[in-house]
Amino acid sequence: MKASIIGTTGYGGAELLRILQHHPYFRIQSIHSTRGEAPVSNEYPHLLEINRQTLEGIEIEKISEQSDVVFLAAPSGASGQLAGQFAGRDIKVIDLSGDLRLPGDQYKSWYKKDPPDVSVIEESVYGLSEWNREKIEGADIIANPGCYPTAALLGLAPALLGGLIKPQGIIIDAKSGISGAGRSPSKGTMFAEMSENFKIYKVNEHQHTPEIEQQLKLWNKDTSPITFSTHLIPAVRGIMATMYGELEEGITAEEAASAYREAYEAAPFIRVRQQGNYPATKEVTGSNYCDIGLSADKRTGRLTIVAVIDNLMKGAAGQAVQNANLMFGFPENAGLEFIPVFP
Amino acid sequence: MKASIIGTTGYGGAELLRILQHHPYFRIQSIHSTRGEAPVSNEYPHLLEINRQTLEGIEIEKISEQSDVVFLAAPSGASGQLAGQFAGRDIKVIDLSGDLRLPGDQYKSWYKKDPPDVSVIEESVYGLSEWNREKIEGADIIANPGCYPTAALLGLAPALLGGLIKPQGIIIDAKSGISGAGRSPSKGTMFAEMSENFKIYKVNEHQHTPEIEQQLKLWNKDTSPITFSTHLIPAVRGIMATMYGELEEGITAEEAASAYREAYEAAPFIRVRQQGNYPATKEVTGSNYCDIGLSADKRTGRLTIVAVIDNLMKGAAGQAVQNANLMFGFPENAGLEFIPVFP
Amino acid sequence: MKASIIGTTGYGGAELLRILQHHPYFRIQSIHSTRGEAPVSNEYPHLLEINRQTLEGIEIEKISEQSDVVFLAAPSGASGQLAGQFAGRDIKVIDLSGDLRLPGDQYKSWYKKDPPDVSVIEESVYGLSEWNREKIEGADIIANPGCYPTAALLGLAPALLGGLIKPQGIIIDAKSGISGAGRSPSKGTMFAEMSENFKIYKVNEHQHTPEIEQQLKLWNKDTSPITFSTHLIPAVRGIMATMYGELEEGITAEEAASAYREAYEAAPFIRVRQQGNYPATKEVTGSNYCDIGLSADKRTGRLTIVAVIDNLMKGAAGQAVQNANLMFGFPENAGLEFIPVFP
Amino acid sequence: MKASIIGTTGYGGAELLRILQHHPYFRIQSIHSTRGEAPVSNEYPHLLEINRQTLEGIEIEKISEQSDVVFLAAPSGASGQLAGQFAGRDIKVIDLSGDLRLPGDQYKSWYKKDPPDVSVIEESVYGLSEWNREKIEGADIIANPGCYPTAALLGLAPALLGGLIKPQGIIIDAKSGISGAGRSPSKGTMFAEMSENFKIYKVNEHQHTPEIEQQLKLWNKDTSPITFSTHLIPAVRGIMATMYGELEEGITAEEAASAYREAYEAAPFIRVRQQGNYPATKEVTGSNYCDIGLSADKRTGRLTIVAVIDNLMKGAAGQAVQNANLMFGFPENAGLEFIPVFP
Repeated sequence: MKASIIGTTGYGGAELLRILQHHPYFRIQSIHSTRGEAPVSNEYPHLLEINRQTLEGIEIEKISEQSDVVFLAAPSGASGQLAGQFAGRDIKVIDLSGDLRLPGDQYKSWYKKDPPDVSVIEESVYGLSEWNREKIEGADIIANPGCYPTAALLGLAPALLGGLIKPQGIIIDAKSGISGAGRSPSKGTMFAEMSENFKIYKVNEHQHTPEIEQQLKLWNKDTSPITFSTHLIPAVRGIMATMYGELEEGITAEEAASAYREAYEAAPFIRVRQQGNYPATKEVTGSNYCDIGLSADKRTGRLTIVAVIDNLMKGAAGQAVQNANLMFGFPENAGLEFIPVFP
Repeated sequence: MKASIIGTTGYGGAELLRILQHHPYFRIQSIHSTRGEAPVSNEYPHLLEINRQTLEGIEIEKISEQSDVVFLAAPSGASGQLAGQFAGRDIKVIDLSGDLRLPGDQYKSWYKKDPPDVSVIEESVYGLSEWNREKIEGADIIANPGCYPTAALLGLAPALLGGLIKPQGIIIDAKSGISGAGRSPSKGTMFAEMSENFKIYKVNEHQHTPEIEQQLKLWNKDTSPITFSTHLIPAVRGIMATMYGELEEGITAEEAASAYREAYEAAPFIRVRQQGNYPATKEVTGSNYCDIGLSADKRTGRLTIVAVIDNLMKGAAGQAVQNANLMFGFPENAGLEFIPVFP
Repeated sequence: MKASIIGTTGYGGAELLRILQHHPYFRIQSIHSTRGEAPVSNEYPHLLEINRQTLEGIEIEKISEQSDVVFLAAPSGASGQLAGQFAGRDIKVIDLSGDLRLPGDQYKSWYKKDPPDVSVIEESVYGLSEWNREKIEGADIIANPGCYPTAALLGLAPALLGGLIKPQGIIIDAKSGISGAGRSPSKGTMFAEMSENFKIYKVNEHQHTPEIEQQLKLWNKDTSPITFSTHLIPAVRGIMATMYGELEEGITAEEAASAYREAYEAAPFIRVRQQGNYPATKEVTGSNYCDIGLSADKRTGRLTIVAVIDNLMKGAAGQAVQNANLMFGFPENAGLEFIPVFP
Repeated sequence: MKASIIGTTGYGGAELLRILQHHPYFRIQSIHSTRGEAPVSNEYPHLLEINRQTLEGIEIEKISEQSDVVFLAAPSGASGQLAGQFAGRDIKVIDLSGDLRLPGDQYKSWYKKDPPDVSVIEESVYGLSEWNREKIEGADIIANPGCYPTAALLGLAPALLGGLIKPQGIIIDAKSGISGAGRSPSKGTMFAEMSENFKIYKVNEHQHTPEIEQQLKLWNKDTSPITFSTHLIPAVRGIMATMYGELEEGITAEEAASAYREAYEAAPFIRVRQQGNYPATKEVTGSNYCDIGLSADKRTGRLTIVAVIDNLMKGAAGQAVQNANLMFGFPENAGLEFIPVFP
């Protein structure tokens, strides 16, 4: 199958290249950017002699004719527009931006931008691979989940669906590596400002909030608004979501653990840790894994759930390829068996 | 006044040296360690030609005779024993360990060690400078607060005392730089393991839990057990405590902000941020400041409180010297006006 | 082919696992450590559900019977002894330590340890893949090059062999990530000591000095003693060797560049940069590449050569597998096409 | 004495504030920037409640009338122009840029910019405090040395002046923290690009080359062009210059060491390390120290000199204040006794 990538010069695009370059079933047909024609190794010297392709401008028709699937790794705002232009053509679309994940009014209110066409949004399938498999398999357009929502939802799903915690008062204290902020230089993401630093940002205002809530409500309609905090770790990759919920009466640590293990038994990329063992972000770096740890605390009646992912992999490009695999009927983990790079 | 330091080779001890070396009212009389005699610059080359003193063994009587105050920066377990040996002598004691902060039974249960003599514990005054000033001024022995409790308590005090939040269900999601783990090498604190990593540890089991709860209950006896999570940031210094409480009916963001500003009006080291502005750990690095930001969220009815400190300064040596200033009647900020080192 | 790994719990061993786990021609038959029996994921949680093997003790005979090749990633001193025990048996040996790279007297003088049996040293072939290919293909025992020597020698070879620089007065100013120091905790490699730090160590005393000189002299017998400095970068992986040589009369930048390009035309892992373009360590992280940049300076008559590698890959496990490929007649890059992980 | 700072929003300006805020003899009269009026704590929240001054536009006459000294921390190009406007007025000028350090033709050739007025350049005194003390004391305009030249020159001076090394063929392999690149965001200085990275840049083209050579030639007119390499360390602060020179016949390690010790006996900020002991950058972080280590190698006949500084302190703001102290007859170390912040 032939794949095209739009927005190749961002970190998500570069990670798609890293995955697809050796994918057993996809071949990179073309790479695109608004930057103008140049070998991609000019932008990313680490790809020298690995990918010799030249960045091209964005021609919707040509791409649609030549490729079977297009990955949109363009910025929010632009990405949804592109999805709309590809919609209805003979090409599958996987959009890594936030543009297609929310109803238009919610999008406008949290992203402060105009939403794409309602028809494109409605046609899109939310690409949380482990929990939306069937719809993904039949989809033409995928709204690939955000990095934070991926960690949060994979962490919360068994608890909420299994009735381990109450759907009210959930708190998600999330921490992300800096690559999540993208490749456009800004003062706040400079090395000199972020090394030896730890920041909180967009408190109670992060645009991933409604994306998480929307899915939680699908799982349990009584879910109340979540408290969602986002922090910047002085690290390039990695998200940890530390989550707190009130244990339902009588739920034991063992029951919680076995509910998680059962839920993810067949999921090749979810690793549930043994009791007393918690994942660290570096234990999934460079891979598509999501590792989950649990602590059910009798003293407080709370369940603490810890989920970690590599934000550029399972939180973006990795899950996008996982969805592509599902859409084309390939094994879910084809081309994605990257072992975490440790140390 | 003459000061002695025991446990000089740890990071807390080194930070005491950095402060006291140029303190206007204290002179470093002697420095002690179990390591045996050697210039301290052998251990810490950054002190070359700055401190030319030699580490000495620990002789209780000699120290008591020569010095007016002794800072105990020894490991938990040893430190409380030393405090007991100094008790009753003509010397003030400031213990930076956790040994004197809890009743014996609580200590034993959370620290898994035998507690010091009950009399020493009872004589000790909890050195949370901003909130225990009067008792500290009259104290002979100070139990200097832990690093996490300092950030958590300074952040929660106005909310709890001012009735901004309910005393039930408080969550403290805390993150610390790695220097908090001390100077004894271990696999978990190696650069290769922690760079580009973010870890959670001692989930629902951290020994600072009862220390925080004990003080919260003094402020509001209805305080229920807290949920307290601790994480390791890939940074040397800095603690951020992100805290969540349920807003009392009708409390507005403005009321919350003004309660905080009022509470800390006269506190030279507490800086309350303007609305919409949140502190980052690096903005207090190397200084004795505790910076606090607030977000009262109508959507969820929760107050998010963010407090940051330098764990080695306000979280250890800085607050210890602040307490010494109070004990001897010096200006609270004498010798402590370090400006944060940024970037 | 079946491969065994001894010393699996060190960083070199872990990297061998990362490579061999998905190697098309080698299967990991067994993994060994002196630590005693335990799943390797106890030591390395990032390998959970990826490698389910159990660490075993070291039984020479059993390993020899079951495996076709054994990788020795044990500490210096122990590793050479093990090589001696495997010598003469029906198994190929690749030793990643420094034990087999030097004549006994040199080893003793620079490593301050007793050398292995002279016969084992003499049977060993120096595994600098790009320059010793033929001998490696016929070898039974490989002395896998050190991390610094790999970067230095790959960088200097075309200059020395091509007569671009004088063989006298070569200076190698090398910088390494901290993983090169191994996984045994020590004060000097703690995060708190190395973050935001840059150190020089073993000035004019590094044990890799004679290894580099020995090879340089094979290439040009007039090579005089080199000046070799080693520094620690506050990073986990990566070596940069910045090297200085006196340009032979009349050599131009273009000639130098084309000599390098020609020398490495057929080498799949060596990337020579365009003029004015220099490699950074992160551009090879996680991969087996060695990137080289050049600057011939008319003002001073000197050639500056910059070579970067990932010390755990091309500087250790990667080159070891490259050598195994050569020994067994597999394509040189089989199982080694890792794309650098950037950012 | 009253001091004004122009270019306060850069890192050099922020460091001047950190020093002058508590200086015993200077008071910050005014702070200036082209950014327009705003409290400096808007730019630098770490200065909240510490410096309550407002940034002002740049009015030459007003500043000259109100202040005794002005520090120019503006970008190259602008800074020299400002110095020209202050020249001849009743105010001392200390320029931290590179604009006044070189003759116009050299400046133009290395900086690719037009030089300031020749008269201003000629009136300027090169502010290498330890070696130009007398001229500095009588100066009206100081060309404050560059960060790399400070480390390199302090390291080489005793060797060159004392005849320890030949003046030909000196190599300076220098490494700098990223703050040296300033506060303007760019892709190359982003956290995601520089964390876990190590780069070389401007090979044989760095604009500090002629500044170093010029001073070396003043010390020994036979000095030949130097080879000067600059690298970026993944750290915020710190420069290490590793320098190589050919030992003059018969010079021993002891002679070299005692020449250094003698040269810097009275220098409060230069610390010469004992033999076998080498400085690390973090051992001077936040301080005005320059630490120097030496290795005279018999095997190669070379002297390796290692000098470290904090690039923002001794390499910029610290030395600037040291020069101001000298110009006004204050003790050289007044207000500069910062103890390195370790860890």
